[in-house]
Amino acid sequence: MIALLNSKDSNFNTEFEKILKRGAMDIENVEGRVKELLNAIKKQGQSAIIAQVAQFDNWNPTNFSDLKITQEQMQKAYEAIETPLKDSLQLAFERIYAFHSKQKPKTWLDFEENGNILGQKVTPMDRAGLYIPGGKAAYPSSLLMNAIPALVAGVKEIVVCTPTPHNEPNPLLLAAMHLCGIKEAYKIGGASAIGALAFGAQDSQGKGIQKVDVITGPGNIYVATAKKLVFGEVQIDMIAGPSEIGILNDGDARADYLAWDLLSQAEHDEMASSILITTSENLAKQVAQKIEEFLATLPRKEITAKSINERGAILIVQNIQEGIALMNQIAPEHLELLVKNPLEILSKIQHAGAIFIGENTPEPIGDYIAGPNHTLPTGGSARFFSPLSTEHFMKKSSIIAFSKKGITQMGQECGILAHTEGLDAHQNAVLARLNS
Amino acid sequence: MIALLNSKDSNFNTEFEKILKRGAMDIENVEGRVKELLNAIKKQGQSAIIAQVAQFDNWNPTNFSDLKITQEQMQKAYEAIETPLKDSLQLAFERIYAFHSKQKPKTWLDFEENGNILGQKVTPMDRAGLYIPGGKAAYPSSLLMNAIPALVAGVKEIVVCTPTPHNEPNPLLLAAMHLCGIKEAYKIGGASAIGALAFGAQDSQGKGIQKVDVITGPGNIYVATAKKLVFGEVQIDMIAGPSEIGILNDGDARADYLAWDLLSQAEHDEMASSILITTSENLAKQVAQKIEEFLATLPRKEITAKSINERGAILIVQNIQEGIALMNQIAPEHLELLVKNPLEILSKIQHAGAIFIGENTPEPIGDYIAGPNHTLPTGGSARFFSPLSTEHFMKKSSIIAFSKKGITQMGQECGILAHTEGLDAHQNAVLARLNS
Repeated sequence: MIALLNSKDSNFNTEFEKILKRGAMDIENVEGRVKELLNAIKKQGQSAIIAQVAQFDNWNPTNFSDLKITQEQMQKAYEAIETPLKDSLQLAFERIYAFHSKQKPKTWLDFEENGNILGQKVTPMDRAGLYIPGGKAAYPSSLLMNAIPALVAGVKEIVVCTPTPHNEPNPLLLAAMHLCGIKEAYKIGGASAIGALAFGAQDSQGKGIQKVDVITGPGNIYVATAKKLVFGEVQIDMIAGPSEIGILNDGDARADYLAWDLLSQAEHDEMASSILITTSENLAKQVAQKIEEFLATLPRKEITAKSINERGAILIVQNIQEGIALMNQIAPEHLELLVKNPLEILSKIQHAGAIFIGENTPEPIGDYIAGPNHTLPTGGSARFFSPLSTEHFMKKSSIIAFSKKGITQMGQECGILAHTEGLDAHQNAVLARLNS
Repeated sequence: MIALLNSKDSNFNTEFEKILKRGAMDIENVEGRVKELLNAIKKQGQSAIIAQVAQFDNWNPTNFSDLKITQEQMQKAYEAIETPLKDSLQLAFERIYAFHSKQKPKTWLDFEENGNILGQKVTPMDRAGLYIPGGKAAYPSSLLMNAIPALVAGVKEIVVCTPTPHNEPNPLLLAAMHLCGIKEAYKIGGASAIGALAFGAQDSQGKGIQKVDVITGPGNIYVATAKKLVFGEVQIDMIAGPSEIGILNDGDARADYLAWDLLSQAEHDEMASSILITTSENLAKQVAQKIEEFLATLPRKEITAKSINERGAILIVQNIQEGIALMNQIAPEHLELLVKNPLEILSKIQHAGAIFIGENTPEPIGDYIAGPNHTLPTGGSARFFSPLSTEHFMKKSSIIAFSKKGITQMGQECGILAHTEGLDAHQNAVLARLNS
């Protein structure tokens, strides 16, 4: 049974603290092991990757080229899928592409009256590495959500790594690769994939995998730890943990909708968190009952029940303002607003990965088809991380072009500041222009 | 003497490889020590910070409140500075503020014909921590460059940490804090500052420093390592190393300008890199000579000479295309284009932190007064990091609001995708809306 807590309860603060700490990952605990894997790849390259794939994915690649997924395989997989699924993937592709196109930042220049030009140049990264989980949970939707922003950004080289237990690629993942026009993909998983992408691994003829500029994509604690360790060597999107939903409600909503939306988060992972905050004790009880009822019908009922019972909660609050304040503290990955005045509430929401508004917007619509990215900050990191976006695959350069008039107007002030900081060559570089 | 290399030389590739590796930081080497400092702060809070300040800054704070810089101190320092400097700081403030205002992203909503609404909400982070170096090199300009984007973003709580050897704050840094309206600042430096900002440290009455959401600012290898270690706990701007300049020239330029611009980078740090790429061997020789001549006049000549001799280089190329290709490989923090057709060359520049165009735009103008940020990616990380900007102090939330018509149109496709991934509660959450 999902926990019911009233904010008036004496144990509420203690229980709420647990919710705030839901994202704690014991990176310290796996860091040593992950460092070993990464260092082996850094030093031994392809042979280390081959050994690690053999160890973790239970098959025996003999050469690095055995790890490659061919475009022919992708195409065949795509051709083999049925029409309704093909159409659904196509619709998802188009809507995700359209949304991410709107995020694409543009180069701009600004002209000052004195002839100075200032601006910002935006360029795509040269090479992006996408990590897509395989094995237990192979999600073609994750391939779309990671590849499409890179495509929109204009990244020329996109490379995919995915774990492939027993050398049996997931056909839907291959089909999604074809749909996104992926040309380079490898059957490498976990920390090994992050190492291969961050450091590259080439043989004496220069064949193999080249290092990338950015790595994005979800994964388990080993992947998250490896991404943290290679950050700086490459850019990464974020460090993400188990999935989570927060639903905010002010009394009036259908209990079955709320129950399904909480369950849909819980079925991802035993570690997932599903939290409902409502002003209605009556609704809270109805939702708890519906959850029990629906749970019995689910194929993934064991995982789902464990998540709901151990990490789910329904919080009953005295008014919606209290609910908003608690939700901002939670800073959930997914936030559903099932409230009477969503625009007013929206203006008060400070921290959330994605916000789903109204009863016709169940969270799963955002996982697949709405358009915005489903790779979102978890564990409260929506306080400072943003959803994966086209911008994660681009970077900026400042542009400064001063006119003779501009440097003449401001050179003295610049020189004073430089000299004050003890940097006389800086001052002289400016004064040289003024005196000539 | 600065090294002169011709791209036709047999040792060119070997020497160029060294330039590409200029940014290598031995983080591994200091990581253990930095982890100890951070863990002590995590566990012991204020007492650990006090002990670390005593150890590294050579004075003896007795209480955590001794570490606080008061607004009164800032105001007095500001009032004490002379008019020309005050005006220069004011001009810098205004220009930096104006540029960063243009970077501020806006919330947007997009309405679909079926009544769906999609968008992106932009919110400032709640609390930002700025690390500003003190001691050997205390730069008020760095305070401006880190505080102003946070101000423009709308961050409510901005907290500054700066090392303060012998408990003697740099008056110009204090003055710059007053100018930026900083209300909270501490005399804490190095990895200790990063720990204090990332974890917070409060006493039993809740007094002390609270944890932040984002940490920005330059620093030495200990600061860089600490920032890397707390990444994920908080957001950080980038991991930066020693400063560097690349100048690209196609034959025609004043040798004295080039010499000063190279020297102005070299004077920062023995580890700084100053690289000129030119098509003219004649100019290369003139610049080398001017550097020797000017070096003798500089107060920081020892540091500057060491940097120029050990990490500077003039590369002579056969044509400008070759120069562009080499510069894109270098991906310099600062890039000066002293070329006949700067717009054409600009279009071919893929990777650079900030681009300075034309002979009236010496790099120092960007350090102080131009407007764009001077906190820039180093060591080739301009391939994937961007200049510090207003966006580093903001984050985004996706917005999804489906209409009844919208979910009816797309619900089936969404359900098919969810079911295909084995996520039946996801499918049911959508179907529940269709069937009612």
